[in-house]
Amino acid sequence: MINELNDINIATVHNPAEIAAHTTLSAASKASILIEALPYIQKFAGKTMVIKYGGNAMISEELKNKVMQDIALMKCIGIRPVLVHGGGPDITDFLEKIGKTSTFVSGLRVTDAETVTIAQMVLGGKINAEIVSRLNSLGIPAIGLTGKDANLLKAHKKLAEIHEANGQTNHVDIGFVGEVTAVNTQLINDLLDNGYVPVISPIGAGKGETTYNINADYVAAEVAGALGAEKLLMLTNTKGIYTSLDDPKSFLSSIPQAEATIMIENGTIQGGMIPKVEAVLHALQCGTKRVSIIDGREPHALLLELFTNKGIGTEII
Amino acid sequence: MINELNDINIATVHNPAEIAAHTTLSAASKASILIEALPYIQKFAGKTMVIKYGGNAMISEELKNKVMQDIALMKCIGIRPVLVHGGGPDITDFLEKIGKTSTFVSGLRVTDAETVTIAQMVLGGKINAEIVSRLNSLGIPAIGLTGKDANLLKAHKKLAEIHEANGQTNHVDIGFVGEVTAVNTQLINDLLDNGYVPVISPIGAGKGETTYNINADYVAAEVAGALGAEKLLMLTNTKGIYTSLDDPKSFLSSIPQAEATIMIENGTIQGGMIPKVEAVLHALQCGTKRVSIIDGREPHALLLELFTNKGIGTEII
Amino acid sequence: MINELNDINIATVHNPAEIAAHTTLSAASKASILIEALPYIQKFAGKTMVIKYGGNAMISEELKNKVMQDIALMKCIGIRPVLVHGGGPDITDFLEKIGKTSTFVSGLRVTDAETVTIAQMVLGGKINAEIVSRLNSLGIPAIGLTGKDANLLKAHKKLAEIHEANGQTNHVDIGFVGEVTAVNTQLINDLLDNGYVPVISPIGAGKGETTYNINADYVAAEVAGALGAEKLLMLTNTKGIYTSLDDPKSFLSSIPQAEATIMIENGTIQGGMIPKVEAVLHALQCGTKRVSIIDGREPHALLLELFTNKGIGTEII
Amino acid sequence: MINELNDINIATVHNPAEIAAHTTLSAASKASILIEALPYIQKFAGKTMVIKYGGNAMISEELKNKVMQDIALMKCIGIRPVLVHGGGPDITDFLEKIGKTSTFVSGLRVTDAETVTIAQMVLGGKINAEIVSRLNSLGIPAIGLTGKDANLLKAHKKLAEIHEANGQTNHVDIGFVGEVTAVNTQLINDLLDNGYVPVISPIGAGKGETTYNINADYVAAEVAGALGAEKLLMLTNTKGIYTSLDDPKSFLSSIPQAEATIMIENGTIQGGMIPKVEAVLHALQCGTKRVSIIDGREPHALLLELFTNKGIGTEII
Amino acid sequence: MINELNDINIATVHNPAEIAAHTTLSAASKASILIEALPYIQKFAGKTMVIKYGGNAMISEELKNKVMQDIALMKCIGIRPVLVHGGGPDITDFLEKIGKTSTFVSGLRVTDAETVTIAQMVLGGKINAEIVSRLNSLGIPAIGLTGKDANLLKAHKKLAEIHEANGQTNHVDIGFVGEVTAVNTQLINDLLDNGYVPVISPIGAGKGETTYNINADYVAAEVAGALGAEKLLMLTNTKGIYTSLDDPKSFLSSIPQAEATIMIENGTIQGGMIPKVEAVLHALQCGTKRVSIIDGREPHALLLELFTNKGIGTEII
Amino acid sequence: MINELNDINIATVHNPAEIAAHTTLSAASKASILIEALPYIQKFAGKTMVIKYGGNAMISEELKNKVMQDIALMKCIGIRPVLVHGGGPDITDFLEKIGKTSTFVSGLRVTDAETVTIAQMVLGGKINAEIVSRLNSLGIPAIGLTGKDANLLKAHKKLAEIHEANGQTNHVDIGFVGEVTAVNTQLINDLLDNGYVPVISPIGAGKGETTYNINADYVAAEVAGALGAEKLLMLTNTKGIYTSLDDPKSFLSSIPQAEATIMIENGTIQGGMIPKVEAVLHALQCGTKRVSIIDGREPHALLLELFTNKGIGTEII
Repeated sequence: MINELNDINIATVHNPAEIAAHTTLSAASKASILIEALPYIQKFAGKTMVIKYGGNAMISEELKNKVMQDIALMKCIGIRPVLVHGGGPDITDFLEKIGKTSTFVSGLRVTDAETVTIAQMVLGGKINAEIVSRLNSLGIPAIGLTGKDANLLKAHKKLAEIHEANGQTNHVDIGFVGEVTAVNTQLINDLLDNGYVPVISPIGAGKGETTYNINADYVAAEVAGALGAEKLLMLTNTKGIYTSLDDPKSFLSSIPQAEATIMIENGTIQGGMIPKVEAVLHALQCGTKRVSIIDGREPHALLLELFTNKGIGTEII
Repeated sequence: MINELNDINIATVHNPAEIAAHTTLSAASKASILIEALPYIQKFAGKTMVIKYGGNAMISEELKNKVMQDIALMKCIGIRPVLVHGGGPDITDFLEKIGKTSTFVSGLRVTDAETVTIAQMVLGGKINAEIVSRLNSLGIPAIGLTGKDANLLKAHKKLAEIHEANGQTNHVDIGFVGEVTAVNTQLINDLLDNGYVPVISPIGAGKGETTYNINADYVAAEVAGALGAEKLLMLTNTKGIYTSLDDPKSFLSSIPQAEATIMIENGTIQGGMIPKVEAVLHALQCGTKRVSIIDGREPHALLLELFTNKGIGTEII
Repeated sequence: MINELNDINIATVHNPAEIAAHTTLSAASKASILIEALPYIQKFAGKTMVIKYGGNAMISEELKNKVMQDIALMKCIGIRPVLVHGGGPDITDFLEKIGKTSTFVSGLRVTDAETVTIAQMVLGGKINAEIVSRLNSLGIPAIGLTGKDANLLKAHKKLAEIHEANGQTNHVDIGFVGEVTAVNTQLINDLLDNGYVPVISPIGAGKGETTYNINADYVAAEVAGALGAEKLLMLTNTKGIYTSLDDPKSFLSSIPQAEATIMIENGTIQGGMIPKVEAVLHALQCGTKRVSIIDGREPHALLLELFTNKGIGTEII
Repeated sequence: MINELNDINIATVHNPAEIAAHTTLSAASKASILIEALPYIQKFAGKTMVIKYGGNAMISEELKNKVMQDIALMKCIGIRPVLVHGGGPDITDFLEKIGKTSTFVSGLRVTDAETVTIAQMVLGGKINAEIVSRLNSLGIPAIGLTGKDANLLKAHKKLAEIHEANGQTNHVDIGFVGEVTAVNTQLINDLLDNGYVPVISPIGAGKGETTYNINADYVAAEVAGALGAEKLLMLTNTKGIYTSLDDPKSFLSSIPQAEATIMIENGTIQGGMIPKVEAVLHALQCGTKRVSIIDGREPHALLLELFTNKGIGTEII
Repeated sequence: MINELNDINIATVHNPAEIAAHTTLSAASKASILIEALPYIQKFAGKTMVIKYGGNAMISEELKNKVMQDIALMKCIGIRPVLVHGGGPDITDFLEKIGKTSTFVSGLRVTDAETVTIAQMVLGGKINAEIVSRLNSLGIPAIGLTGKDANLLKAHKKLAEIHEANGQTNHVDIGFVGEVTAVNTQLINDLLDNGYVPVISPIGAGKGETTYNINADYVAAEVAGALGAEKLLMLTNTKGIYTSLDDPKSFLSSIPQAEATIMIENGTIQGGMIPKVEAVLHALQCGTKRVSIIDGREPHALLLELFTNKGIGTEII
Repeated sequence: MINELNDINIATVHNPAEIAAHTTLSAASKASILIEALPYIQKFAGKTMVIKYGGNAMISEELKNKVMQDIALMKCIGIRPVLVHGGGPDITDFLEKIGKTSTFVSGLRVTDAETVTIAQMVLGGKINAEIVSRLNSLGIPAIGLTGKDANLLKAHKKLAEIHEANGQTNHVDIGFVGEVTAVNTQLINDLLDNGYVPVISPIGAGKGETTYNINADYVAAEVAGALGAEKLLMLTNTKGIYTSLDDPKSFLSSIPQAEATIMIENGTIQGGMIPKVEAVLHALQCGTKRVSIIDGREPHALLLELFTNKGIGTEII
């Protein structure tokens, strides 16, 4: 039999480079790779997994496609995937386009009413739509959501913390920056039960019609926790956690929750990794079963983490 | 008993002016008005109705609130409302903000890639979110959708028609302007069945990740037709159809489909009303049972059309 | 649009007097009254409410119609209404017709086998049928039940209490007068789930084929309690509870359960109101959430209590 | 094992006479009789059967009990029984009690407003309640219905036909005597699906609150037809149909529909049997699959007709 | 009516001897026997019962048919029957056919790999198929299962116990003889819910593809316990339990669990009855509600135990 | 993350040879092979496929395991697999064991009562159990069935055809050899809907308790046809169909149904392939959508046919 696939856009599935890479494999090798995935397929069937999909896995068309293929495969074999995406750089770009410069306090963007509207438009009206569109092209029915849809993410204002030289901590109002107070898991489960993949923008619904921009890592953590997800998979721009950043051999494929806390306190985990690990710890406290930090720059990182014996990232349990 | 309503923001429901307006009514009058609505509530329960909500009913905060209250009431008494909104003026405003001037061919905006992205962001990321937010505040769980969500609105390119002086008609490519080729009614019905109100932006999904901007009246017509809706309610900036525009007494509260066609041909229906009536006729051909053209500037226009004996608009059957 | 309502007997809905009373209202006033009801509609949707409908709200055709309209409206907007009706005066009339005089002991009718059969025929075969018939005319599918249907109300004999001059209390057998020992809530919920309105006559099923006549207030209290009803609405011939019967200003719109007990003990609540309030307290003890005593002589008393901000009766919590 | 049956009133099941009659049977005989019923139990499982239960099977307590036991057994082994009962003699008795004499035109009672109310009270408030009560005592949840419940039997006036000496037929208005125009099968099926046995009084719902008294044989025929019942079982005071009334050997255990028509025309079927056979023919025309005329005076007539190889009545196919 | 039964093989239901035996019974006697069964039918509807069907009720074609008729009747009136069968003698016969002699240790067959395969073939491929076939012929859809189907009976090795003269107990490996470690009740309930009768061979699934032969009494006990069955009915070759084996009058129709234990210890229960009673006690400990030991040689033993007032066996509670 | 798989017997999934074969593959290659399968997974989800699993794919433990792994994978990704197995050689072996020699007429085994019992025991009690056991070990709940279970395969006698030298065809009774007359698809679909994999032995149920042995290819064809299966996959001992048997290059990956008929008539298809192709044509006539003839000796033949672009067998459409 020569298989025909009329209704799916095969071009988006296989680019020539990819095909060239593996056509030399024997039929037996192909089959045995499929069979290697079998026990994982069985193990994960029916489980909810939240994927945090951020800037680093969005850097090229090819990488975007591979992430979407991975999610499509997860969905097809019975996993219930939920996407949370970020998009800080695109917001900055768009603000510049309308001649608006952002200032930051303790790493958080000062967000006036116009800025939060732009954030909502970029996240919910552009990046989200693009992800939904790519999944649809692969035959996966995806639904874009912001936190406003059926109050998916109720939120209130989050103050920035400024650590003064004298050791005091001041809290500063930086506008429409929020944190999640409640997640409408009913909505997510209704969509999953009906076969859709929810794609969530990190926009929160405040009182009345107030809009909040929220850190996407934390949204993913809250969503995973509220759903009691089997896994939170965070696509980042590092391979995972190292005991010594200079030494690739110090990579940790698994650490317990308690140890991660210690590594933050003693400075082993540093810089931009700190808020990520804090979000991870938060997700575990909220009810997520396991969290993996994966290198989003690696092609098919999700598949390799889930369906091969060795995995590729750091799992925190 | 003094009724308490802790969990609903009563302030958004009654502004002081409104309350003042009717507190002088006797209890008996209030009760008899509720009872007047009873047979209509029974008649419409379980029926799907599509509301086209355009620029004219969006002109003031008060008017927006009243439209949302009407939809909330429709939902609460068992109607299945589906909203389609427009937003041309907001798109124009935003394009200006980034220094981009629109040109029009036969009334249609020439739409390059950047323009269609802006249209998608304004419609799906701003106007839609605002509507969803208002409905949520009234305790109605609404979900914002664009045509990309689960391929809700599949579309292809629509060419502009230029009627030349010599009687010929030329077709001109004006970019990412589309028309609907298929509606995913499964998605709408899944959401309605789960108790959500779908709010739809007129953005179409083309091949791959192509985006199209589509006329909202036509989207409403296609959606109503595909759903076999009981009613399509079009909120416009006129009271309805007149045989003579200068004579308010020539208002028609009901006309048959065939007559509407004649009135376009013989010029009784003119100007901006023509495309609206054409959309209406299209909706009826596609399977909508009845269409009403209502004055969106009238407060509570939807309620008055649906729940009073006289109605307020023109119905085309 | 001019609304047509072919299948519902509009004449029964609006009598001319009523229509005259409110046609002078502006459309805006009408709409705002509908909107005033919105938050209550949302609050009460899906809740079970038991209505005790007794002699005082049955005094005129007009009043009967208004009560039925209220129940129809409650049903249409998603409330689950259950009616319990009384009918002592009609039983007395019918007994007289067959030349039978009733004697009473401590306010309870001495009920021999023939009398209880007549009671069953009048309640279950006449009054009940009339209520069912009126609801059906309004398009509401009602089902008449006595306590015998699927053993809806299991009952045993209730003895009359005679308080002797010497302070002793004697218990006297007065025949087939009963009290409820169990309520078949499964039957009521089956009917409500299938969309029917149960209309219950206060006839109890004893052992074998024994029939008992039971006080309707107590039946309503037991049914409301067994269902864990959101509300028991008792239509009576007073406006509610007063601290001083002579002073209309002493009307109480809400009193706590404990206080009602005290008011009986200290004599503030007197006469025919005592057994009603005792039934109310019993309903609260059995699991009803709230009970209202309403003036059944007031047109649309149910609607005004439920859907206006001020309500009209006394609520005991 | 000695079987204990605490929750069912065994006394109502077996009277001593009955027990004496068969205790001499060997265990083997008992078992083989149960097994004889097996193929009929399989054949009839899930089938709807309408039983017309009239005056002749109501003549003694013992006979009433046996009919109810039969229906209980039918229900327990998976048949869906629906009862329609009559009660003319009881109505006459009650009218006499209140000093009212009935006149008849062509065999139909002239029925004024008071008479139809009495009919409704006797049928719906007394006879129906007694049947329901007996079934409940056997552990079968029965629900009493009149044609008014959810408009079960819509009806209009039926005129009496007077065949004049000159060969003409006059139609005379004799008051509230009706005929069925529509049956609400949804209600019957809802109750059957929920496990209840519907017991129907032959009272029809006219326009508004008008009540009609209807011939019970015809009600049974209409109900069986509307339900597409597997069988209509008419309990009468004859063994069935004979070719010659004087000759017991001329009994027919089965006749085709066409032949029954001929036997009426040629006078073989006479007197009170004519309207019964006409009702039977009507039931077959309306969609009933088979009708049996059975001798209601025979103990356990229903069981013997259904579960023994020979049956006992006349079946019209 | 003369009943016709085209689709069921009536010949298998009634043999001539049987029919002769009871045709002399009057119709009234037949009916009253059916009615005697009514309260038991009501009591047992929807209950799960496990029948252990062993060698003694398999001795003649007639007896086999009667057992199957009993199970067919149980199924038809709403009981959920589950069969467990044995078959030791047939295994022995077949082993002889291939020239293999069995040795026994403490009453258990030494079972090598070839023997256990033969056991599986005889039980699952011959006896089971015959039972299924007979039930199908009676119109009852039966499904044959071994413990391997969806791991119905997980098992591990059981060692034989040898009681040495010196009072010590040695444990000896006798091959593929097993005991149940887990029962897949989901499978049994899935089949019962879909209307099938499961027929289970006492073959257990060990690790990988290991097969174990298991004592059928114990399998029945484990299955009944795991299902929380209403009854376990054990068809044996004795009438039940006696206090004195020589005295038929010492038959016990019911004994409490504790007493049975004592009767084993003090030697009142002896020989082959001991393992049966031990299995019974095990069933009760595992969650079975009641167990009856019945004489499988008695025709229609199951019916007589279940549907007559006196029953025929010994029940242990 | 290092994946742990405690509850599945990983040893049965990967033998060392296999693992060695592909550990040298890069992660990227592995991922891209999984992705290559994606469109086929989507295309086949929810489709029913019948696999004929015969002697040639049963020749070694390793090959058996691979077939079972393939079926496990099919099941896990949403296909509804149904297995039909054969087993002629094992039947012959067993008959020899009991000293019975088979004679054949026109290729069909003369089958007396003892032979058909042995066939049933070998197929249903040994081969079937082994397959079920292997699938269970892979975590796939399989249920073994013969045609007797709930009358899965109703059958009647099939006569052998002898083509005489004189051109005449004689029909000879060769005993309990049958052909399928009806398939109980309800049973298969009930099991598939509940998540089980049915494994079917080619034993048919005749009248009463008669047993028939049936050709497994034809059983697979009938089952696939009755189910309207998406595919019938026949594992054989050839690579598929060739125009010239001597020339490997003449292999056909796809032929239309009509052409296959011609190739039988003109002798291109010969020998043992003829009955297989006839069974295939029969399956297509009965309603199977597509049939593939695949080389069962090829490891993972099923996966390669289904999930790679080229496939490996001959498809007849």
